[in-house]
Amino acid sequence: MTSRRPRLRELTPQECWGLIATGGVGRIATTTDDGPVILPVNFIVDNETVVFRTTAYGLIGRIGPASEIAFEVDRLDEEMREGWSVLLVGAMERVEDPDEAAAALGSANLEPWVGGVRNLVVRVRPRRVTGRRIEAS
Amino acid sequence: MTSRRPRLRELTPQECWGLIATGGVGRIATTTDDGPVILPVNFIVDNETVVFRTTAYGLIGRIGPASEIAFEVDRLDEEMREGWSVLLVGAMERVEDPDEAAAALGSANLEPWVGGVRNLVVRVRPRRVTGRRIEAS
Repeated sequence: MTSRRPRLRELTPQECWGLIATGGVGRIATTTDDGPVILPVNFIVDNETVVFRTTAYGLIGRIGPASEIAFEVDRLDEEMREGWSVLLVGAMERVEDPDEAAAALGSANLEPWVGGVRNLVVRVRPRRVTGRRIEAS
Repeated sequence: MTSRRPRLRELTPQECWGLIATGGVGRIATTTDDGPVILPVNFIVDNETVVFRTTAYGLIGRIGPASEIAFEVDRLDEEMREGWSVLLVGAMERVEDPDEAAAALGSANLEPWVGGVRNLVVRVRPRRVTGRRIEAS
């Protein structure tokens, strides 16, 4: 329907970190006993890691420490058909250090949207950071 | 830092289909040889299945027909901290029927944002449809 020809451009890891630096809502994917899942979470970026909080009893809390997850953030404009997406892949680790955990739990940006106890702080230290930008040419 | 107490409500499958009926951008998660991935795709809904197009040579095109994927759509308002997310889990099947494929390829809503040949039509017939809405109380 459109005659615009957007271009796809691969982003460098540095560009990816720049785009997600302010945190917000991302999506985690992992595989459970009952198949794959994708869950939205709010997150912050800390020194080239992604930090979020969850409940120790929920789906994310039950994933083993060695499990790899995918974490994705995007800003896509359906009208304009442009935007970007960033994908991080890596192991999820529980933040055990009390000071680190307390700092994360004190961040307004990590405050859970919904009530309930979400006091498990989780960090993803990605082994791979990739991204793409689609822009009008 | 807000004192609003949003509520989380589970959605019925019917509510989920209603929310995603108009299509748009969703996200697919699956596992590849190189770990888990999440990819944004534009999609349409057809008779309680989700249909999208891709390239036969890309990541999605190379996933086996028996592979289960997760497909997620959400509308989340970070300012208001409310919105909804819908999660579908099921096998991905290639649409082999020429008429069905032609109909999907003719849909403006499935037109790829980026140039290139994306003529593989894929359908997800979910075995599980779940969703949640977070609303201000």
